[in-house]
Amino acid sequence: MAHAGGGGRDLKAFGVVDGRVAIREGGSVVFPESGDPDLAAALAAPELNPLIRLGRDAWRAALEADGSRVPLSACEPSLPLRVRDYVDFYASEEHATNFARIFRPGKPPLHENWRQIPVGYHGRASSVVVSGTPVNRPSGVVAAGEFGPTRALDFECELGFLCAPGPSLFGVVLLNDWSARDIQRFEYQPLGPFLGKAFATSISAWVVPLSELGDAFVDPRPQDPPPVAHLREAGRWALDLDLEIELNGEVISRTNPRGLYWTPEQMLAHLASSAPVGVGDIFGSGTVSGSEPGTEGSLAEIVRGERWLADGDEVVLRGGGLGEVRGRIVS
Amino acid sequence: MAHAGGGGRDLKAFGVVDGRVAIREGGSVVFPESGDPDLAAALAAPELNPLIRLGRDAWRAALEADGSRVPLSACEPSLPLRVRDYVDFYASEEHATNFARIFRPGKPPLHENWRQIPVGYHGRASSVVVSGTPVNRPSGVVAAGEFGPTRALDFECELGFLCAPGPSLFGVVLLNDWSARDIQRFEYQPLGPFLGKAFATSISAWVVPLSELGDAFVDPRPQDPPPVAHLREAGRWALDLDLEIELNGEVISRTNPRGLYWTPEQMLAHLASSAPVGVGDIFGSGTVSGSEPGTEGSLAEIVRGERWLADGDEVVLRGGGLGEVRGRIVS
Repeated sequence: MAHAGGGGRDLKAFGVVDGRVAIREGGSVVFPESGDPDLAAALAAPELNPLIRLGRDAWRAALEADGSRVPLSACEPSLPLRVRDYVDFYASEEHATNFARIFRPGKPPLHENWRQIPVGYHGRASSVVVSGTPVNRPSGVVAAGEFGPTRALDFECELGFLCAPGPSLFGVVLLNDWSARDIQRFEYQPLGPFLGKAFATSISAWVVPLSELGDAFVDPRPQDPPPVAHLREAGRWALDLDLEIELNGEVISRTNPRGLYWTPEQMLAHLASSAPVGVGDIFGSGTVSGSEPGTEGSLAEIVRGERWLADGDEVVLRGGGLGEVRGRIVS
Repeated sequence: MAHAGGGGRDLKAFGVVDGRVAIREGGSVVFPESGDPDLAAALAAPELNPLIRLGRDAWRAALEADGSRVPLSACEPSLPLRVRDYVDFYASEEHATNFARIFRPGKPPLHENWRQIPVGYHGRASSVVVSGTPVNRPSGVVAAGEFGPTRALDFECELGFLCAPGPSLFGVVLLNDWSARDIQRFEYQPLGPFLGKAFATSISAWVVPLSELGDAFVDPRPQDPPPVAHLREAGRWALDLDLEIELNGEVISRTNPRGLYWTPEQMLAHLASSAPVGVGDIFGSGTVSGSEPGTEGSLAEIVRGERWLADGDEVVLRGGGLGEVRGRIVS
């Protein structure tokens, strides 16, 4: 099944290897070739942006094209997208509720806007890196008068969505929105998270196009109250993908984005209702946290502040046929 | 004087005209030429990014180079920078205080962090447009269950700073951070401004390099408490630039960034303390508001909510030798 867990077979996906477009197919990587000059030029680019710009028919042609083949294990894929704008949403009710308890104890967990719109903010596009890139522990102002390395380094397990013309969605990646909770907590009022989230955001190297997600499409969770018309119309599907979070080789949480309150197309519709959206844009779902213990998507929620990431720790998000996104903390 | 008002002579500045680098010099525009192959290639680019990357000696050589000359009035400059990341700070104590009264009446105007760090957030890089670009009135969720065109469209008079390798500062522009206050008010908790500020940010077409700012450099305002070491060291100068805000041909405010609490180099130092910063990055100072009536930098502060921008209204920010940034509202 497409939504099989970490042990399942990875889905067909686009990436960039040796400065050109490549397709992951099981344990192999194909470098697709085309006689169409536009498609051939897009396939020769060191990023997926030109291919995404060509549209759906070109994506299908590329997926079906033949070409030279190398083992996946021999490849070092690079960042697949030249990122233009990066947005991070906050679509899990469970995560938003958990974080309100941590950051605003004693206050109502959700603001009035939360069930009306997919709440989100802009992240730092130039901080998006490919899976495997080491993550430097950032320094910042962690309390009044106190500057130094973060002592509250965390991960966030998210899905990332690459935008296409229309605007529409091209495909999905696993996304780890690394977070320095002490920097974030000190800085975030009233303009939101800033440097606590601007040092690194890791995405998986392989982008699974929506066409390959098969039976992962499921009905979304009901919404109460129903949102405004263009968001209601966009709430057609959720993604059922069994994800695992691994810390230093041990699975510490299992979660699934099917329970997100807001759907990927709703996030896109909200963004596109006033902002320019197009090729190069990527947005994160926000941390995928479930309601049961063992289904949380960040360390803050899993161990409730008992520990944070140490230098040398390695976090791997994987599953759902998407592959993995991996990162190790360095000092 | 470099800090003369709107009537003063504009300073020498870099822009892009007809797909190549140009220099504004009084009423003329020069297309500089160079025998140095790297500099010649940078000058032939349709954006300033390659020239900025070459560093200070190249900027000076370009400013001194000769070339063909056309009247400024005959030029249609384009967006001078390919924007990688756009950050908006909040460096005016008067503006932050005025907005707290509007958005959080009855609460303390400044959060604990405000005098410790330059508070800021990421804006939408792809929404940055060149002076003269019409500004479409955005639609959004303006209240619970209510989607429609904003009824509270505002401008914000800011300085914008273009970053260079080091990181250091390359130059300065006038920046209008157009804002839909109803969308912003509904969405901004807890993750900060998002779509209320993501539809358009206008910058002047001509970038004045720091080397041309002459006697605009003045001592910054004292800071109490003194900030952490790297911010204290970065607080060496402020900019004394007499700016005017014109609405439909009438000057409605006169302000000056010399009174900003945080200096441009402090904003850069804060950003660079944990985030990747380089060529293509631009940050805004935040609205420049003074303490006297008639020196506010946004319509919300000038007329206290009595009116907002109507379709057809044109806003021009000018002065300080920087030139102007102009935009007209269209429906």
